[in-house]
Order: sequence, then C-alpha cells, then structure tokens
Amino acid sequence: MKFELQAVCPDTGARAGLLHTDHGVIETPIFMPVGTAGSVKAVMQDQLLNDIKAEIILGNTYHLYLRPGTDIIEAAGGLHKFNGWDKPILTDSGGYQVFSLSGNRKLKEEGAMFQSHIDGSRHLFSPERVMDIQRSIGADIIMAFDECTPYPCDYEYARKSMEMTHRWLDRCVQRMGETEPKYGYNQSLFPIVQGSTYRDLRKISAEYIASKGADGNAIGGLSVGEPEQDMYEMAELVCGILPKDKPRYLMGVGTPWNIIENIGLGVDMFDCVMPTRNGRNGMLFTSQGVVNIKNKKWEKDFSPIDAGIENRFSNFYTRAYLRHLFQAKEILALQLASLQNLSFYLHLVKEARQHILAGTFASWKRTALDIVKTRL
Amino acid sequence: MKFELQAVCPDTGARAGLLHTDHGVIETPIFMPVGTAGSVKAVMQDQLLNDIKAEIILGNTYHLYLRPGTDIIEAAGGLHKFNGWDKPILTDSGGYQVFSLSGNRKLKEEGAMFQSHIDGSRHLFSPERVMDIQRSIGADIIMAFDECTPYPCDYEYARKSMEMTHRWLDRCVQRMGETEPKYGYNQSLFPIVQGSTYRDLRKISAEYIASKGADGNAIGGLSVGEPEQDMYEMAELVCGILPKDKPRYLMGVGTPWNIIENIGLGVDMFDCVMPTRNGRNGMLFTSQGVVNIKNKKWEKDFSPIDAGIENRFSNFYTRAYLRHLFQAKEILALQLASLQNLSFYLHLVKEARQHILAGTFASWKRTALDIVKTRL
Repeated sequence: MKFELQAVCPDTGARAGLLHTDHGVIETPIFMPVGTAGSVKAVMQDQLLNDIKAEIILGNTYHLYLRPGTDIIEAAGGLHKFNGWDKPILTDSGGYQVFSLSGNRKLKEEGAMFQSHIDGSRHLFSPERVMDIQRSIGADIIMAFDECTPYPCDYEYARKSMEMTHRWLDRCVQRMGETEPKYGYNQSLFPIVQGSTYRDLRKISAEYIASKGADGNAIGGLSVGEPEQDMYEMAELVCGILPKDKPRYLMGVGTPWNIIENIGLGVDMFDCVMPTRNGRNGMLFTSQGVVNIKNKKWEKDFSPIDAGIENRFSNFYTRAYLRHLFQAKEILALQLASLQNLSFYLHLVKEARQHILAGTFASWKRTALDIVKTRL
Repeated sequence: MKFELQAVCPDTGARAGLLHTDHGVIETPIFMPVGTAGSVKAVMQDQLLNDIKAEIILGNTYHLYLRPGTDIIEAAGGLHKFNGWDKPILTDSGGYQVFSLSGNRKLKEEGAMFQSHIDGSRHLFSPERVMDIQRSIGADIIMAFDECTPYPCDYEYARKSMEMTHRWLDRCVQRMGETEPKYGYNQSLFPIVQGSTYRDLRKISAEYIASKGADGNAIGGLSVGEPEQDMYEMAELVCGILPKDKPRYLMGVGTPWNIIENIGLGVDMFDCVMPTRNGRNGMLFTSQGVVNIKNKKWEKDFSPIDAGIENRFSNFYTRAYLRHLFQAKEILALQLASLQNLSFYLHLVKEARQHILAGTFASWKRTALDIVKTRL
C-alpha cells in the first residue's frame, strides 16, 4: 500500500492524495460507506460502484465474525468474493461493537470477553484473534484492536485505556508480522490514536502511533458524544503529529459539516453510518441542504430529490414520491434515501478534493459549510 | 387499445399476442408485477425495466386512494409521472382490499362503506367513485368494481354477489362513458367474471361479461383458497366463453405452475404478490426450481442465485451470500429475492410465449411444469 500526496491546501491542513491498494486506487479525501455485515444496507453493489461511486467500503469484524463466520468467508475466498465488491475493503476491529452491542462483556489485558448479541454464545476478542479474523475476512485495511472510550471519560480511565490500546497495538503488529495474507493481496494494519478529549493523552497517543511507521493511521474515540469543537481540537492536534506521508482516517465521523471541517484539519478518510441510518429515518443530505423528507411540505414537490447529484436516481425520483414511499412504509424509501445520502457524501468529498487540487479549498469550504448546514 | 392475436397453440388453449396501449406494446402472455402503493416492493424502477423486463405493472386503487390520495397523484400528472413508470399500468378496483384490509366494511347495492386501515376514516367505494379514482390515477387498464367472493362460498351468496357485480359493471361502463381520460391517453375498462366455483354461475357471468364488448376481460374470485383443480376448471370454462380476440386476465394467480397451466387454458395476463411477498420470506423461484434460501444447505453454495436468468443480479450474487443476507436480516436480501423472483416470472411467461409462437408449447409445458415444481 502506498500513499501519494498530490496537493496540500495553502490555507488549511487539507490534502489530496492517492491511496494505492491491491484492489485499486482510492482518491482522497474519501468517505467510506459502512457495510456492517458485508452489505451496505439497502444498496446494491452495482449502485455502490456506478451511482454512488464508492471507492472503498467498510466491513465490521464483530458482525462478520458472528455471522456468516470466518469459515464461510474463507470458503468463499474472502469478503470481496463473498459479497462481490472488488474494490478495497476496510474492516474495523470489532472493539467498538463488543462494547455497544454484546452482552456480559469483560475487558482484561488479554482482550475482551463477550456474549454474542445474536445467540448469547461466549467469545474472546484478543488483539491476536482480531488480526486473524481480519486476515480471514481479507480486508485491504485492517484496524488495530483498541478500546474506544466513551464520552465523557475520566482522565485516569482514559489514560489507562490508551496505554492498554498501545500495548494491544504492539501485539497486533507482532501478530500481523507472524501471519500472511490469505488471498494473495496485501493487507495493511492501521493503528488507532485514543486519549479521549485530553490534549496531553492525545499527544502521547499520536506520537506513539506515529512511531510505528504504519501504512496509515486512524483517530478513534471521537464522534462519541463530545462537543464538535472538542472533536475538531483533537483532530487538529493529532493530525499535526501523525506522519504527513501517510493517510489519516477519522473513525465514525460524521455529518457533512464535520467532514468538511476535518478535511480542513488534514483528515483523508472518513466513515459513518449517518448517511444510511439517518436516510432510513427520512433525513436526506442534498447538495442544497438537509431535507426531512417526511415533512408535509414535500407532498406536492415534484422536483428531483437532488438535482445537484449525478446518478440514475437522485434526478429521476421526486421528493413527493419519496415522501409518499416513507409515508407508505415502502422498502424503496430506504433504498432511495440511502442512495441519495451516500451519493451526496461521495459527491462532497470529491468536490473537496477538486478544490484542494485547484488550490481553492479554503473559500469553497466557507460556502459549502453554509449550504450543507441549511435546513430546507 | 388493441389486441393482436399472433398465434394459438394447436394442442392447448395457449395464445400469444400483442396488446397495444398508449404506453407501449405488451407481449402476451404476460405477468404483471404488483406495485400496490405505486412501488413494486423493494425494486427500483430502472431494475423493473432493464433487469426484470416488466412490460406492465399493477397499482392498487384502495391503497393509492388512501395514500398518497388522488389530489397528489393528479398534481403529479397521474401515477406514471408520480412514480416514474412510463409503461402501461393496470389498477385493480380496490374491492378486494376493502374486504381484506379495511375495518367496519358494509356492502350495499350502492357500494361498499369502509374504514381506512390507516386512520379509521370512513369512505364509500361505489362503482362510479372507483371509476373516477382510476381515471385520476391514470391507469391504462381500469378494473371494474366487483365483489370477490371468499372460498368456500355458498351458492346463494355467490349467485347474488355475481348479480350485483354485474349491476355494478353496468354502472362502471356508464360512468366510463360519461367521463374522459385526464392525461391525454386512452383508458380501457376490463369487466370481471365472478361466480365462485359454480360452473353454471361462471357460465352466466362469462356470457354477461363477454356481451359487454370490452377491450379485455378478467376472471376474478379465483386463487382465494380453492383447490387448484377447481381454479383450472373455472378458468377453462370461462376462457371458452370469453371473446377470443380480447385479452383474458386471471386475477391474483399465482405459482409458476398455476401460470403455466392457465396459459395452456387460454389466459393472457397474470398478476400475483407471490414473487415479491414469498421472496421477502426467503422463497426463491428459479429456472431450476424452488429454493428456500434460508436453508442451511446453501450456506457455502457459491453458485449464482439463478444461472438461467439474464439480469445483472441473478448471476452476480451467490446463494451463500443471499442466505447470509437473510440470516443477518439485511434489506438487500429483500431486494435480491424480489428481483430474482420477478425476473423468473417474466422469464417464464416469455419462454411460454416463444414456445407458443414456435408451436412447441404443449411439450415445453410438460417439461417446464416438472422443473418449476422441483424443490431444490
């Protein structure tokens, strides 16, 4: 894996680059649609490729490990073969889900003991185990096993947790060194900076993570309920420490304005369930602003869902029809809203990238922030 | 609207024809996907057109009248404009739903009083009202308002109900004559033969319906729980009486084998929720037979969903992946199963048509029946 820095904004920290993987090149900054259980919810693979123009998607280790399980994924020849997505895949480590979804979880130095949210069965996720699972899934980018601290989090807990995350990282690095990819293409490990909202911890963590010389680095533990200003402050601090010549991935972020701001701070990669999850609840992100499509005001609005987006759907279907589909609880509502929101997120990062390459990011950012925050 | 009979099977009653409408030509025999509330559930309009290769879809008067309502559909310029389906649309009359879905329904000579299943509001569906609503929806084919008798149904009830359906038909015909299409294209009324499973009533009803000289004729009140042999017996009897030069539509039928059998009896048009509804429950109809995709036997079957179907999906996705999607309760499962089943239904009637045109329908029918009934 190789990261090629193409342009840096003269006024902000924004960067444009190319991330070369064995499953193709990713143009950064990039947003990665979340495909938790091997499917980006309500979206077909051909739509992901041709309409949304996704360049990389996420899978989730916790979900995929429990269902369908690594034996089935291995029998298929890895997740790319299993779900028919032939471009890059990143898997998160499952640590977050162990704490948010599973029952009876218990954290020890060894790892995290937990019970499946599906059938109550008991499992241990250790750094080694999680590396092995991600090897089996066949992700192009493997995330280190970490503890994502909640917000708020007291200083002592945050410090101890960060230190354990660092020790876990060393075990992840060692395991990755001892094992080989299973499907003939390279898999890169991204370590994760933690430290909650404490500047000194974030600095220690970022320096530790930077020292590992990984192919890319991630910022975790943000977008967990802290004020947006804290998120930006931490991202800025950490981006200032992480290597310039490697991609920076801010995990689980966020709203369109969060993404624009963080691109300006030097973040290259994003993922979030917001476009799909909020879409399924009727919240549309468009190139004109935010639309609550369930609102009665759209019932006779026969204008396109989003005239500013180039795909086969956003211009074809009307807001009135989409509102009707939500009212009637039609599955197509979930499909169209997911397509719209993901298309918009990819459109947004592409636009940011073009302005970084053109040297006009800073002025674009001001205008774009106003637009994406507008409530229509 | 004009029906052009192209070929009649020398050994059975099967026919191939072309039904010319102002929204294009329909090749018969045809299966019509059901788009109850203006959306074929879980299917995008472009998939309906390009993958499933649907030629006409159904809408439901009861559902569309209650939601979004005729004012919104009229404001859009009719259902074709509202949902973006530019090919023919048939609307059923809503009578069936008044009895299956609504509360506190009361049948009188005037029509059916009912309460909305959505908000309990009171409404009257009379033959005149239902014609007006279908005018507003803008269906190419408008169904007469009828009572669909349940099964079993005692003779006296069936006779009286049939007679009322005939009187209602006269009122439908009159109202259609007094009103104009709203959107500049022709709308044809199809009357409906009733009479439960009583040969003499079916004969009376078919003769009455035939006497109306409509552009097409429908057979209702079947596929409501009666033995399959009764369905075939009634369809055969009625097809023998209905005009040969007009299309015959058997409402709400059915399984793939029901469709093959009824094509052999002279039916030209079919609709059924089975491919979409059963698909959403994991029952797949394929060119090799019936698949319960939730079955564990498919968990490592990496063969295509259906190698015998030409669309972008049935050959692309595997049975193992689709099973996983059902296990994980992913929305994509509903999408893929609906696409597969509707694609197969359209494939089946197209194959029947080709064999009718080639004069080989009778031998094809025997083989095809065995295949479609096979449980894989």
